[in-house]
Amino acid sequence: MVQQAGSSREGETTRAAESGDLGRKPWRPYFEASLGFCNHWYPAFFSRQLAEGECRGQEMLGERLLFKRIDGRVYAIEDRCAHRGVPLSVRPECYTKNTISCWYHGFTYDLRTGALGAIITDPESPLIGRVALKAYPVEERKNLVFVFIGDEAPHPLALDLQPGFLDEDLAIFPNGEHDLVKSNWRLAAENGVDASHIYIHRNSGLVNAARRPLPLASYFTTREGMVIDKDGAPKGVVKGAGRRTSVWETEIEGVKIASQYRPGINTDSSNTTDTSLWLPCGLKVDPFPRGDTMQLEWYVPRDEQSHYYIVTWGKRVKDEPQAEEFFREMDAVWKDLVVHKFNNEDVIAREAMERFYADEDGWNQEHLYRPDMVITEWRKLASKHNRGIQRKPGMRAKI
Amino acid sequence: MVQQAGSSREGETTRAAESGDLGRKPWRPYFEASLGFCNHWYPAFFSRQLAEGECRGQEMLGERLLFKRIDGRVYAIEDRCAHRGVPLSVRPECYTKNTISCWYHGFTYDLRTGALGAIITDPESPLIGRVALKAYPVEERKNLVFVFIGDEAPHPLALDLQPGFLDEDLAIFPNGEHDLVKSNWRLAAENGVDASHIYIHRNSGLVNAARRPLPLASYFTTREGMVIDKDGAPKGVVKGAGRRTSVWETEIEGVKIASQYRPGINTDSSNTTDTSLWLPCGLKVDPFPRGDTMQLEWYVPRDEQSHYYIVTWGKRVKDEPQAEEFFREMDAVWKDLVVHKFNNEDVIAREAMERFYADEDGWNQEHLYRPDMVITEWRKLASKHNRGIQRKPGMRAKI
Amino acid sequence: MVQQAGSSREGETTRAAESGDLGRKPWRPYFEASLGFCNHWYPAFFSRQLAEGECRGQEMLGERLLFKRIDGRVYAIEDRCAHRGVPLSVRPECYTKNTISCWYHGFTYDLRTGALGAIITDPESPLIGRVALKAYPVEERKNLVFVFIGDEAPHPLALDLQPGFLDEDLAIFPNGEHDLVKSNWRLAAENGVDASHIYIHRNSGLVNAARRPLPLASYFTTREGMVIDKDGAPKGVVKGAGRRTSVWETEIEGVKIASQYRPGINTDSSNTTDTSLWLPCGLKVDPFPRGDTMQLEWYVPRDEQSHYYIVTWGKRVKDEPQAEEFFREMDAVWKDLVVHKFNNEDVIAREAMERFYADEDGWNQEHLYRPDMVITEWRKLASKHNRGIQRKPGMRAKI
Repeated sequence: MVQQAGSSREGETTRAAESGDLGRKPWRPYFEASLGFCNHWYPAFFSRQLAEGECRGQEMLGERLLFKRIDGRVYAIEDRCAHRGVPLSVRPECYTKNTISCWYHGFTYDLRTGALGAIITDPESPLIGRVALKAYPVEERKNLVFVFIGDEAPHPLALDLQPGFLDEDLAIFPNGEHDLVKSNWRLAAENGVDASHIYIHRNSGLVNAARRPLPLASYFTTREGMVIDKDGAPKGVVKGAGRRTSVWETEIEGVKIASQYRPGINTDSSNTTDTSLWLPCGLKVDPFPRGDTMQLEWYVPRDEQSHYYIVTWGKRVKDEPQAEEFFREMDAVWKDLVVHKFNNEDVIAREAMERFYADEDGWNQEHLYRPDMVITEWRKLASKHNRGIQRKPGMRAKI
Repeated sequence: MVQQAGSSREGETTRAAESGDLGRKPWRPYFEASLGFCNHWYPAFFSRQLAEGECRGQEMLGERLLFKRIDGRVYAIEDRCAHRGVPLSVRPECYTKNTISCWYHGFTYDLRTGALGAIITDPESPLIGRVALKAYPVEERKNLVFVFIGDEAPHPLALDLQPGFLDEDLAIFPNGEHDLVKSNWRLAAENGVDASHIYIHRNSGLVNAARRPLPLASYFTTREGMVIDKDGAPKGVVKGAGRRTSVWETEIEGVKIASQYRPGINTDSSNTTDTSLWLPCGLKVDPFPRGDTMQLEWYVPRDEQSHYYIVTWGKRVKDEPQAEEFFREMDAVWKDLVVHKFNNEDVIAREAMERFYADEDGWNQEHLYRPDMVITEWRKLASKHNRGIQRKPGMRAKI
Repeated sequence: MVQQAGSSREGETTRAAESGDLGRKPWRPYFEASLGFCNHWYPAFFSRQLAEGECRGQEMLGERLLFKRIDGRVYAIEDRCAHRGVPLSVRPECYTKNTISCWYHGFTYDLRTGALGAIITDPESPLIGRVALKAYPVEERKNLVFVFIGDEAPHPLALDLQPGFLDEDLAIFPNGEHDLVKSNWRLAAENGVDASHIYIHRNSGLVNAARRPLPLASYFTTREGMVIDKDGAPKGVVKGAGRRTSVWETEIEGVKIASQYRPGINTDSSNTTDTSLWLPCGLKVDPFPRGDTMQLEWYVPRDEQSHYYIVTWGKRVKDEPQAEEFFREMDAVWKDLVVHKFNNEDVIAREAMERFYADEDGWNQEHLYRPDMVITEWRKLASKHNRGIQRKPGMRAKI
């Protein structure tokens, strides 16, 4: 790439995106967080994905976790036997409700604490009671299972969620999407909150089906109101519905480029959707895809090259029948339309960025522009308010 | 993993396994031997796998070898032309019985010495007679082809075999198993001699078919008699049939866990099997799977991530007909039962350990326990009595 | 490998190949050029592979390029959006003839200059006019598209071509072969000019079909006339038809090895083919495969592990009908015969060398011999006359 005028490229680019402040240095912690941030809550999967008595192994943030549901409650411990490191989930063996025994030598752990409570092949072993697998705090809320990954005592779940998620009147669709995508989680998060990326959706099946007004881009030109970082509340950035700049048409060499469906032409409703991104990795798009529903997404790091893409929807309801009606409509109409005829474009974009950022020094070579202000604000917020940078298990200090 | 009480985890773990001696330091050479030990004999394949006049390429200990059988005798040289490194085995071309010519430029080597004896494309080349491929000493015994890998003059084959292997009355089954398994060879060797891993076999087809008494675990609690390291004899460790501790039942949270088949219940014979592991990588299980046969296994390093798993059986016989009868029975009954309904569990275990040891510092993170005493004795023995640590070919000093 | 007599192996080998000069040191730049040499012209593909208005992405020398044909002329720019590095070729979108817009955020580049001329999602962006993708000089000649890769102003195309290629009376077959081969480009180039490698073709379908006289090997024993490095002209090495040493027969342990078809036996014509290799990576074999045609090959680096193998043929013609007749015959008879029944052997050879040179220090472990003199001359020539060593994009200095 060539910078044709002005001073050094980095300076220019930063200035373009940042309007003159300290440049990339405030983002350094974020650049190191290829495995995500530790000491936060992450959604692992939907409640329906783990039945009573079942076990499930899943890698998250480079760690291997084993989940089991016992008497309705979900527990999680390290999915790596303390003895010789095999995953317990290869062949889950539970002689009792509260324990799992390693299929290899019978090391038996309490799923509630991780404690090594018995060893079938050496019942008097001095290791019993002295060794434990890491146990992960788990909370199950609104049809999703959340797990706290880190060494600190768990912080309140509500601080790591999109605001309002736990509100009693908010019904969350239990049958959302849970996919593995081959890009680093940050590329997904930035794609999610990206103000101007709606451009790639202009021909999406969802947009065409709904004749949905969608500007070419839509973004803040001021930082005002963008960063939400009050003490004791979730930390995030919000694009905001107010005072936005929306691009409905432009031209290239005299050729006019315009949105297909515009307010006042195809519909009366103006676009008032707010998109916000919250630590550690949750998105809220509200309202979407309907005027009375919100879309919730998470980009949960699996390892450095992939993330779980979790998508569902919420609606404020008065009672259970109304919630059931909402769930039926999501299943019948919207889930397929949003996931396969809208979000699939985002998946392509995330994977298309991976080589640049993973192998070609993209974090330093990129050229951000004005609509990326929300992304740079996110990077700064994440760098400042994360509770620790996740490291590879082999690199963890011994306890 | 968390150590809940006591002093440092490493100290505790070592103490549990080692009863107070020097800790892990004596094992350091073993930890470096990801490609195995050089200057030892290794089985390459069964005699039946190389017919008269045939060539066979096979990677061993990170080196590429080319075998050819000439007038009944097997020879081995480097499978990498001295000129530009192509494998001769890609297209083996033998204009004469004793030579192989590289298919690329006709560099022609004597299979008995490795010497470059002719170059078809430059018959007067000054290189002729001055360059040689590495030639590997080969011995074929008991239906197996053994090769010596290293720079020293070959040591006696008998020193690198399970004791008794060469005894005249021991018939060795010629149609054993030769598989590639995706784990480092040390995980396989340790799985083989592992005292307590018989736990994973408790539901094996072989155990059920034979209603075979099998304790949950069985191990020494003393080092006495465990290490065999007399001068001028094979070096190994033996679990030993005498004075063992066998676990036939235990309980977890009040739930009883017991062996399915126990002596005196399903059978009169008590379990008197001895398992031993010998440098460089050979196992003997005697008697097994019948009371009058022994099982022999080898875990031959191929590269750092895989090994050849060679399995066969031996029986002491009076004459040829008795040997033939033994061979027939192994083919008809036991080979499938042992390989596919017993050893397959071990293969799963070895591969399940690979990530921990290869990527997550498993050699330092593992928690060994009392039944692993034979493994720690093996590591110390191997560290002390190996004849050199194998290095990658590119790293070899030039000669 | 073992050197059995004389001094150090490296000294001996070098002496054998080099007859006493400075050894390998003059080749050092060549050894570093795993991605090829920058500031040279390379053929990208055949003209027929890019129709009017079409786009084509192709990686070359580790860089990603996007080609488009506009009003008959081919342009090339970096296939990596300046914004966030996605390839434009994932979904090429051209709102106007001269531009391509990134499918992700609408960054719009002029294909003729690489300049960022518009951003659909932020029409007033200060980045417009200040950022540009790298634009690559392109020339289309004789049915092939050539691109100049490097930071310098383009040198004359003729200097980077096989001499005579641009001659008016030389018709170049437009329907040549364009394949991806999994070896480093240098192994291909050296295989192409390799004097003695014709040995691997001795049983090729082409040789048998034509009963073509082919010596076992054929090479210069003197450097005289081998190196062509006049100022202002293409730089290359030539094996030369005159004063060559040809090996028609030899013996191994008394067994005679001889060419199948020899001059005077199967045909009257003696072999007078000249083979030459030219910077950056072009081969000429003249005459071949017929007495009045020449074969042209290129080994264009794609990344460190693979190259594009481009093959076509030329013939001096008087007029268009004669050219058409030549093209028809190449299509009907020779293309398949040469590519699939002759060159395919070379592809096998290149891929068979890859592990040795990539992973086993082959550049220092190889043993070159007298016929390789043309290869060592090539390495020296390339080390001396290249215009720069190509580096990975991520490693490029920022501009």
